[in-house]
Amino acid sequence: MSAPRGTDRSVLVGLLGHGVKPSLTPEMHEREAQRHGLRYVYKTVDLEGDRLSVDHLRGLLAAAVELGFDGLNITHPIKRTMLPLVDERSAEVERIGALNTVLVRDGVTRAYNTDVTGFARAFREGLPGADLGAVVLLGAGGAGTAVADALVDLGAGRLHLVDPDRARAEALRDTLARTAPEVEVAVDGPEALADALTDASGLVNATPVGMAHHPGTPVPDDLLTPQRWVADIVYRPLVTELLRTARAHGCPTLSGAGMAVHQAADTFELLTGRTAHREEMFRDFDELVSAETDSSTDADVASTTHRSRESSGERNH
Amino acid sequence: MSAPRGTDRSVLVGLLGHGVKPSLTPEMHEREAQRHGLRYVYKTVDLEGDRLSVDHLRGLLAAAVELGFDGLNITHPIKRTMLPLVDERSAEVERIGALNTVLVRDGVTRAYNTDVTGFARAFREGLPGADLGAVVLLGAGGAGTAVADALVDLGAGRLHLVDPDRARAEALRDTLARTAPEVEVAVDGPEALADALTDASGLVNATPVGMAHHPGTPVPDDLLTPQRWVADIVYRPLVTELLRTARAHGCPTLSGAGMAVHQAADTFELLTGRTAHREEMFRDFDELVSAETDSSTDADVASTTHRSRESSGERNH
Repeated sequence: MSAPRGTDRSVLVGLLGHGVKPSLTPEMHEREAQRHGLRYVYKTVDLEGDRLSVDHLRGLLAAAVELGFDGLNITHPIKRTMLPLVDERSAEVERIGALNTVLVRDGVTRAYNTDVTGFARAFREGLPGADLGAVVLLGAGGAGTAVADALVDLGAGRLHLVDPDRARAEALRDTLARTAPEVEVAVDGPEALADALTDASGLVNATPVGMAHHPGTPVPDDLLTPQRWVADIVYRPLVTELLRTARAHGCPTLSGAGMAVHQAADTFELLTGRTAHREEMFRDFDELVSAETDSSTDADVASTTHRSRESSGERNH
Repeated sequence: MSAPRGTDRSVLVGLLGHGVKPSLTPEMHEREAQRHGLRYVYKTVDLEGDRLSVDHLRGLLAAAVELGFDGLNITHPIKRTMLPLVDERSAEVERIGALNTVLVRDGVTRAYNTDVTGFARAFREGLPGADLGAVVLLGAGGAGTAVADALVDLGAGRLHLVDPDRARAEALRDTLARTAPEVEVAVDGPEALADALTDASGLVNATPVGMAHHPGTPVPDDLLTPQRWVADIVYRPLVTELLRTARAHGCPTLSGAGMAVHQAADTFELLTGRTAHREEMFRDFDELVSAETDSSTDADVASTTHRSRESSGERNH
């Protein structure tokens, strides 16, 4: 019975969350798998209402294991909900209490968070040598929590958490007090942003502000100065209003492309044990984002994309 | 949002049943999909104990739909169990009360039986012009039921059902009385096989006797005569003791390869809307069966395979 078996050589992955249909991650994974000659299918599973409850997710995860899924990506709003449902957790998942990847091996589920590793790698590549002495982090939700953990890993000295939801920001501060007691953490609401930025070396936007369907900027123009690097985790559009303004001010910037691609590459490597072709994945990502924008009639978005391609090209090297 | 999406272009299929891990169907599907340039994964889901219950299967089917499966193959012992769980049924499924394929389209499940269509096509190609005036059918279980329906479709005049389980044979007779009232149907136990064969034009074995792990022959050698064609649905080994003896007697024969390949091809076509490359699928099948046998140390099985390859090659044209 040593004949090759499809089931030994094919990989099945899913993305669970709300509003996941437009995600570029499935296409990035499948194209990368094609370069490896793998039989690989990545399905999106769009959940809403009761289907986001822990009870439903428990059954769905068990069924995914039973039906042969090799892994899952988990996204908003269930990155914490899924936590008690997995058998094992990696160190970064234990630290931040949120996961974005579940691997299945011999029926055992193990959680990882490649948002953390993806942001850390994107930052190292896109803003090498950036001063991490005092970082303002906008947004203390799921993404903000992952970014904070990555910033600590990158060597941040001080973190200033700015979020209108004070309880959420304080919860993240408490987490950091436990996981990174050496890092000084302050908490404020957006009204204190100007003060927070006074002596900041850099700024990360981990809020949804700036997304195509959530336009605007989380930072008033006059608070941006050339001495300060600016990172955005939004990647639709790749060049947000925040990044465009920051560049106009001469700030070094990092778009959301790096985190988007590296989280996908990190998950692909966990799933397959292979080394991802990250440059090709960046090229695919640029092409996919451009294809989306080209099909739009919004000329402003189109011009944004032209600049964003240069930007993500930078990330890629 | 017109960018290509992996989820639109990738196909996910599963095989539910007991003891399905060694099935060659997943590999056949995935190889054929590769020829079409499709991203295609076919997973086996081995079920036993409580997981074969209708309650568990109801949940599993719902989860498969939710998780993005495009279709399922269903095999022993749940081809009937699954029947009440699907939304719609094709004509052959309604007739025989058993399914082997479930398609999922926009959340709606529809059952088909490609064992029926697969056997019919294999028979037409492998035994063209065979006399269907009076056919003895050994085995009135799931496979026998599908074969009986196909034989009716092929134009059988009389069917003689031979099964030690008289109740099962009578149930099939009752089904045929309803679906094919024009066909004359007799029922007997194996002790009446010699009588049943007296005026038979041909014989189909739809019992497991002759399988590698169920060796032997369902028909005593002295009952085989050159005037009579002999078909076997067993395909491991491809040349069963029954077929070897029948050939020695000069009988036209049909191995189980044709049904195995054509059911896979028919399911592939239902799933993808494409035309399967059936000749290539036969070649793959031969290769996979040979690979299994070559890895065995049983010389007798190996020599059997040599003959079986010629045989399934015949089926292929």
